[in-house]
Amino acid sequence: GFVGRVLKYLGITPLVPLLAAFYYGESPVPFVATSAVMLGVGLLFEFLGREDELGRREAFLLVSLAWLVVPLAGTVPYLVAGTGTVAGPINALFESMSGFTTTGATVLGEISVERHGHAMLLWRQLTQWLGGMGILVLMVAILPEMSVGGAQVMDQEAPGLSLDKLTPRIQETARALWGIYAGFTLLAALVYFGLGVADVAPNMGLYNAVAHALTTLPTGGFSPEARSTEAFAPAIQWAMMPFMLIAGTNFALFWHVFRGDPRHLTDNAEFRAYLLVVAGFGAVVSALLFAGVGIAETPSNVDAIAGNVENALRQGLFQVVAIVTTTGYASMDVNTWDASAQTILLFAYFLGGSAGSAAGSIKIVRWVIAKRAAGRSLFVAAHPEAVRPVRLNDEVVDEDTIREVFVFVTVFVVLFAVSTMLLYLDSVRTGLSLSGLEAMSVAIATLGNVGPGFGPVGPMNSFLPFSDAAKLYMVFLMWIGRLEVLSVLVIFTSSFWTR
Amino acid sequence: GFVGRVLKYLGITPLVPLLAAFYYGESPVPFVATSAVMLGVGLLFEFLGREDELGRREAFLLVSLAWLVVPLAGTVPYLVAGTGTVAGPINALFESMSGFTTTGATVLGEISVERHGHAMLLWRQLTQWLGGMGILVLMVAILPEMSVGGAQVMDQEAPGLSLDKLTPRIQETARALWGIYAGFTLLAALVYFGLGVADVAPNMGLYNAVAHALTTLPTGGFSPEARSTEAFAPAIQWAMMPFMLIAGTNFALFWHVFRGDPRHLTDNAEFRAYLLVVAGFGAVVSALLFAGVGIAETPSNVDAIAGNVENALRQGLFQVVAIVTTTGYASMDVNTWDASAQTILLFAYFLGGSAGSAAGSIKIVRWVIAKRAAGRSLFVAAHPEAVRPVRLNDEVVDEDTIREVFVFVTVFVVLFAVSTMLLYLDSVRTGLSLSGLEAMSVAIATLGNVGPGFGPVGPMNSFLPFSDAAKLYMVFLMWIGRLEVLSVLVIFTSSFWTR
Ligand SMILES: [K+]
Ligand SMILES: [K+]
Repeated sequence: GFVGRVLKYLGITPLVPLLAAFYYGESPVPFVATSAVMLGVGLLFEFLGREDELGRREAFLLVSLAWLVVPLAGTVPYLVAGTGTVAGPINALFESMSGFTTTGATVLGEISVERHGHAMLLWRQLTQWLGGMGILVLMVAILPEMSVGGAQVMDQEAPGLSLDKLTPRIQETARALWGIYAGFTLLAALVYFGLGVADVAPNMGLYNAVAHALTTLPTGGFSPEARSTEAFAPAIQWAMMPFMLIAGTNFALFWHVFRGDPRHLTDNAEFRAYLLVVAGFGAVVSALLFAGVGIAETPSNVDAIAGNVENALRQGLFQVVAIVTTTGYASMDVNTWDASAQTILLFAYFLGGSAGSAAGSIKIVRWVIAKRAAGRSLFVAAHPEAVRPVRLNDEVVDEDTIREVFVFVTVFVVLFAVSTMLLYLDSVRTGLSLSGLEAMSVAIATLGNVGPGFGPVGPMNSFLPFSDAAKLYMVFLMWIGRLEVLSVLVIFTSSFWTR
Repeated sequence: GFVGRVLKYLGITPLVPLLAAFYYGESPVPFVATSAVMLGVGLLFEFLGREDELGRREAFLLVSLAWLVVPLAGTVPYLVAGTGTVAGPINALFESMSGFTTTGATVLGEISVERHGHAMLLWRQLTQWLGGMGILVLMVAILPEMSVGGAQVMDQEAPGLSLDKLTPRIQETARALWGIYAGFTLLAALVYFGLGVADVAPNMGLYNAVAHALTTLPTGGFSPEARSTEAFAPAIQWAMMPFMLIAGTNFALFWHVFRGDPRHLTDNAEFRAYLLVVAGFGAVVSALLFAGVGIAETPSNVDAIAGNVENALRQGLFQVVAIVTTTGYASMDVNTWDASAQTILLFAYFLGGSAGSAAGSIKIVRWVIAKRAAGRSLFVAAHPEAVRPVRLNDEVVDEDTIREVFVFVTVFVVLFAVSTMLLYLDSVRTGLSLSGLEAMSVAIATLGNVGPGFGPVGPMNSFLPFSDAAKLYMVFLMWIGRLEVLSVLVIFTSSFWTR
């Protein structure tokens, strides 16, 4: 039922690249095929699935299943087109999963519209935008009810969220958030295109403007340009930063802003912490670049960074914003950075954007709650008689939620460590040489839905060199990372399948 | 009062190196001076301090203070002897703190009895043994009461531990644990010496046997040999492994074994998990070494490791045991390892030995509780109506303890990340080149009281190249790491100082 309905609606979306294919005179076949497969499988699922009294465990199962079936259906255009590396089934699944989970890790060996066509690369961008839409619904309508990993805190700011997801208010909420999401996407496209028209960004035409707007708001990070946003003028890079920051903000807060209450945004604890860590990491990395110690070798295609305030600030801040928001765009190749700047950036991978956005990783609100709970522990250690609840935005966070937040952080970090070791062992097996930092970046870039890492998986490189086994494992990481880890892991427990 | 009494008793301990000094014809002055300073300052403190109705906050303060004042007093022999790098006050404090916290990180540039004298290096070994004794009391008698970081779980297996630390039973407990500790130390010395006498370990005389026994049981890791246990025959290295494993086991479990109840040990959840992770990490690292991919360059002074079962197993297992137990001995230079084997070893730094031992870092029991609590979360997610307590050794772990365990793990990991960044920035400032992995190893080696790391702080190198500021920060890390982090951090909160 549910999965079928999702697929049925998605069956309309290949119309977008189809139009592009006609416009650019490229083959429409891959997109017609995709549409057909999605509609067909969707109707089949809808026919097979009864349901409509959705239990708790069915919800877990359906959400996980949907995020598996949709990326599977999304491989059709890559497979049918048969162009380049993504013509292979595992690479196609990797690219499709990376798209729908808004990760942005790629196995497209050679990224160019000449090689793959405008329509195909537009489809790739579109998968991220659709994935972001899915995440917004998941965040506000489904995950909080499943109360896993402290996801309850995410609905705190959602307007009028009741616990029955079938009420019209949930649908209203979802529609409001989608409106904000679509509105900002349009605005981003207009601003990018406007800068191109104003002649400050020569190669930013309508196609690139739309393509990048589609991957900015979902914190996706795919780009039809092989060298990501390095391909564009500084003006574009500056313009992308606020849009990435918006994409990493709880969209529900904007809803309040648009209803005339900006204090909801400016007083929000997560939003303030989010800006603070971006500013802090940005200042440190920019300072390292400015001092010249953050760069191992100045890339030939980039203006001088050491000693150049604008360039050091832009490059430092852009990379930090791209990573903290889990977008994964890059305005330069971080492989040219010194290990010190890279290591600091690696820690930023664990922050994550805000709840109520399409950002991945741990998310700032969990860190805020963890910090306050730790502070409470210190207080209670000295004053054992004291009763002191943890508060967030003037509301008490209940103890179960606090515990679940800690469970999430710990499971996430352990999963990162175990995945680093597994992927490292596999890379040793296949003779792919990685430094310790690079191996760690592979694990967190996929689990945190960030996208690129360091070394062979740097922003100008790809995940192609990995073995099929490693790629399938990364598909798994992107999948569970996207669905807040625990809500997928739960279906792998034996107790899930027993009454 | 308390700090004074501790110092007064410690004032007797320099007698040990004093006797060694007479035996080897070395200067007795440093040890006479140390004894005098300890007794003098001890009496002063005892005179000044009233007390004897010890409040909760006073307990935090006194424990933290004691672990600061004792290492300060412990600098006297280094300063008075004035030999080598530890003649400087910051280096002396680093070395002394590293000793009393059983860390084993060193700034002794040139380690040899010729340079520093037998007596001085024996004192250095002794500081770790004394530190280990202190930790055992802290673990069973003081920390559980302060209920910080989930330390309550540590007393679960302690024989007859009541909550009033002034009862004779606590003193009985402490004496029993000290007896076990001293007994195993004696046994280790006899075994090491016996192997020397039996001519299978040529350079293991009485001095080295005693010196290494004194740093095995407290999981200390100091050695009077510049190349740590690489200096000794394989037989010694094999013999050290069980003693390190014993040192990382909850001593209270041995108490039950000696009273004829070995099942207390063999059924213990932490002990089983501890053996399991040692076996698992040991197998993986040994396999990497055996396959030849774990080694970047085979060191000239070591027999062939790739393809040699005994050597690969010994080198892999020894390093894993040394790190998981947080001892920090090394049977070879891990800087010759490939980054893959190093990275896997780095993750082992976070495990820690068992509660109720002198091991540092996070400790296995916390990971066991975290794993079970995470499993419970998954169960409850699917069965929200279920009430399911977390159990450990047939007892229910209460929810406050579970939460404190997670708080501890999270604070520890965040402190590791922040410290890595701070120490990295300082190393960049002073022009000390570190890889990302090496920078991380510096932070966790000191915070986790392990000792050596990778690169410049490898087991055959030293922490000398760091700036004074970095060394003082590492002194701070060793100090708070030793005292379970939160019980020190609490005295830095403003609420601690207000009624
Ligand atoms: K991303
Ligand atoms: K140690």
